[in-house]
Amino acid sequence: MHMMDTPLILTSFLNRAERFFQSKKIYSRTSATTIHEFTYKEYVKRTRQLADALTKLGMQQGTKVGTFAWNHHRHLEAYFAVPCAGAVLHMINIRLAPEHIVYVINHAEDEILLIDDNLVPLIAPFVSQLKTVKHIIIMGDAVALESIPIPNALSYEALIADANEHFTFPEDLDENTPAGMCYTSATTGMPKGVVYTHRSIVLHSLTAGLADSIAICESDVVLPVVPMFHANAWGFPFASVAFGATQVLPGPMFTPQLLLELFDVYKVTLTAGVPTIWLGVLQEQRLHPRDLSSMRLIVCGGSASPIGLVRGFEEELKIPYMTGYGMTMPLLETRVVYENGEVPWDGETMGELTIRGPWIANEYYQDERTDEAFKDGWLYTGDIAVMTPDGYIKITDRTKDLIKSGGEWISSVELENALMSHPKVFEAAVIAIPHEKWLERPLACVVPKPEYKDSISKKELIENLQAQFHKTWIPDDIVFIQEVPKTSVGKFLKAKLREDLKDYRVQV
Amino acid sequence: MHMMDTPLILTSFLNRAERFFQSKKIYSRTSATTIHEFTYKEYVKRTRQLADALTKLGMQQGTKVGTFAWNHHRHLEAYFAVPCAGAVLHMINIRLAPEHIVYVINHAEDEILLIDDNLVPLIAPFVSQLKTVKHIIIMGDAVALESIPIPNALSYEALIADANEHFTFPEDLDENTPAGMCYTSATTGMPKGVVYTHRSIVLHSLTAGLADSIAICESDVVLPVVPMFHANAWGFPFASVAFGATQVLPGPMFTPQLLLELFDVYKVTLTAGVPTIWLGVLQEQRLHPRDLSSMRLIVCGGSASPIGLVRGFEEELKIPYMTGYGMTMPLLETRVVYENGEVPWDGETMGELTIRGPWIANEYYQDERTDEAFKDGWLYTGDIAVMTPDGYIKITDRTKDLIKSGGEWISSVELENALMSHPKVFEAAVIAIPHEKWLERPLACVVPKPEYKDSISKKELIENLQAQFHKTWIPDDIVFIQEVPKTSVGKFLKAKLREDLKDYRVQV
Repeated sequence: MHMMDTPLILTSFLNRAERFFQSKKIYSRTSATTIHEFTYKEYVKRTRQLADALTKLGMQQGTKVGTFAWNHHRHLEAYFAVPCAGAVLHMINIRLAPEHIVYVINHAEDEILLIDDNLVPLIAPFVSQLKTVKHIIIMGDAVALESIPIPNALSYEALIADANEHFTFPEDLDENTPAGMCYTSATTGMPKGVVYTHRSIVLHSLTAGLADSIAICESDVVLPVVPMFHANAWGFPFASVAFGATQVLPGPMFTPQLLLELFDVYKVTLTAGVPTIWLGVLQEQRLHPRDLSSMRLIVCGGSASPIGLVRGFEEELKIPYMTGYGMTMPLLETRVVYENGEVPWDGETMGELTIRGPWIANEYYQDERTDEAFKDGWLYTGDIAVMTPDGYIKITDRTKDLIKSGGEWISSVELENALMSHPKVFEAAVIAIPHEKWLERPLACVVPKPEYKDSISKKELIENLQAQFHKTWIPDDIVFIQEVPKTSVGKFLKAKLREDLKDYRVQV
Repeated sequence: MHMMDTPLILTSFLNRAERFFQSKKIYSRTSATTIHEFTYKEYVKRTRQLADALTKLGMQQGTKVGTFAWNHHRHLEAYFAVPCAGAVLHMINIRLAPEHIVYVINHAEDEILLIDDNLVPLIAPFVSQLKTVKHIIIMGDAVALESIPIPNALSYEALIADANEHFTFPEDLDENTPAGMCYTSATTGMPKGVVYTHRSIVLHSLTAGLADSIAICESDVVLPVVPMFHANAWGFPFASVAFGATQVLPGPMFTPQLLLELFDVYKVTLTAGVPTIWLGVLQEQRLHPRDLSSMRLIVCGGSASPIGLVRGFEEELKIPYMTGYGMTMPLLETRVVYENGEVPWDGETMGELTIRGPWIANEYYQDERTDEAFKDGWLYTGDIAVMTPDGYIKITDRTKDLIKSGGEWISSVELENALMSHPKVFEAAVIAIPHEKWLERPLACVVPKPEYKDSISKKELIENLQAQFHKTWIPDDIVFIQEVPKTSVGKFLKAKLREDLKDYRVQV
């Protein structure tokens, strides 16, 4: 060794916040009427107390501690108290189906759960099915344990009150120690888990502070709308502590009105969430405008944003609106590959998007499906994309929705967008159907607008597509349906359509 | 492992530059009249060629390759070609005394040297004393080998021309592999070496891109005045490649006129150097102003800047002027310690500044003096400092210049500043002299301004100090001298003064 062997661990962020950002503020909405306001000094003190309390309950290095909670200060305390003590924070997605919630807690082997008082009804009926949980702690401003329908539940605030504020975290944790874990829903089967290490979170947080990335800094006021139970809230809580940003946590309610109020009152500079949130916020801001002059950046992720939404923020409200995929971030490599080779950067040739880097998982946690997604050191994302000549990624489809016709790949998404821009069409989904010669061919499933229900014709839709696409791309047939089946979050459920139409055969 | 084991190596920066910054430019002044201009695409190609050429000459993993060169594109090529191939770049300080140059090359065991054609005279007379060097390569635009007084010298451009532009660097280097080394002059004895690893340079480069740090980004135009033979030019060349910044390298000449011309012509946004450089630039800009409207930050280091210099840039020219010591950078920890404990943050209590972090050395390369500076995992900097209540470091002295009187520490620097602000004083140095009771006491050595040579009195100087300092700080005596002895770079050489006055005794 020639350089100091300083591990990349979250403890360094917490220590730094304690030394240099003592007087910076955290605002946490815990109910419709309550906003808890405190300093980083108090935050770190309570975080040490939480670690002490959990340790007294049996938390050791490697112990899994689950959270079932909204974005608030107690969740933020757990974000550091658990991993800095060497244990693993399992952020449970509260929107999973009950059987999936039970599955992930048992699969992760959580021993302690931290649950919001207002989320108790979602989990209380299934407590008897949790095989490894020894302690359940209820988080809230005024928790009445006698009214909680969970035997032996503990109060977060009562535990903290009795705990040691000088609890010291180990400084010699290996940087590859697991720090957190999340499960994501799978297309079929149970959710799949991913484990984050200290090193991966520290490096990811650093890149969030880069001038050419999100540039989180001490003068920022950060409000993460993206839930802390979803993919570490994209890392915003960790990066905010690292750089000493003021934090505004929206708690259990994030209607457009409440978000806009927080943006205005706390002069928020940076926020992040999915497109549906921003659709609502844009609409509300048009009706009841608040002062958003402090906002320097909206980060959007999860799915692509409609162009009208982007223009609404950028051109109408003059707020930069960035869709994230991490493309040009240092340390992260991306390739669009087709049959094991990188596609040319021509903006046309499709391939699957693959990623590798220090904060990309290399496995699903104890899951046989690992081999489907992780090959040769790369994560195969399941996104189909093209590379533009200047190095931008354009995502054109999901692998499972792509139509493989002869040697050619046909993007269902591009055909759908073209169909949905026709004035008589309300919705359209294009799926692959089996074909004797070409193996697969596109079939368009179209929902007409009610007023054109009787006047719409296959012919006019086909002719419209012929003007835009090569003949090999033109769907072999169009079927009119009443609605496109959708997932709980409103995405097209094409698997259902393919199932419904599995016996359909085009006449050749 | 749960996350990908992606090593933090310089190769990732080079690959990224090749993919995403192909058309960005590098401007390199190689003589008074020549500026070489090329793209990152060509830069990476030549870097691969250099690695191939050096490999053919016998460079292997771990081989030490010395550079003896100014800031230009060939030096930048070596900055990546050597470490990315797994070898070690030794940047030799061309300003060392000849015996020290010979020492560091032999001590590092350099096997290949890359030397600027215009620096050949500094090294040619000593080539026979170099014990490990097998090849010497001359860098220049039109090298005439027959005129180089070094036997068997090779031409850089001729080697490159014959080399493979598709040379591939290993992608599986361990991140703790040594990448570079520098030697710094010591107060006594031979220079001391420090070895940088890939990991340390990658992490340091990342922090240079942070919004709250220097915020190097793709839109920057970076001109490092700090030499590439001094402490990696503070990391600017590495970070510039990592973030794809345009680079302007000033070559062998950096007079204020030439620097201002480059700033103006290339619309430089970010530059870095020592205070003496900026004194000259400020003066020249006042006399012959150029357009500096593109400049967003001047980074200064090496020693403290006079307040007039800071005000000249910040208030007069409206250019932010930042003095670096890395205080609040993430991952880096600093403590001011006194007798093994941290001093209170009161702005008064002095202690020695200590640092630790992933890009801080933990040893001097094969040197017995390691134990003097590295203790308990911390680097003892030799700087005496106080901490302000809000966490700023104020450096008050060097350990070796501090006066330890009884139990108290007296800052020689503060006394000198007070003395030098007296209208009759030209220069003043305060040193410790032995004292029977207090062990040490301050003695002031004062150079009067010529016009006050005969009218200045000890009494008026002492009275002036008494108005500003506690009585224990007042020097026991003042001696008038003709000049303060100085080092080659203009720093006070107090060791010489102490030697000259070693027999001085205050009358008690």
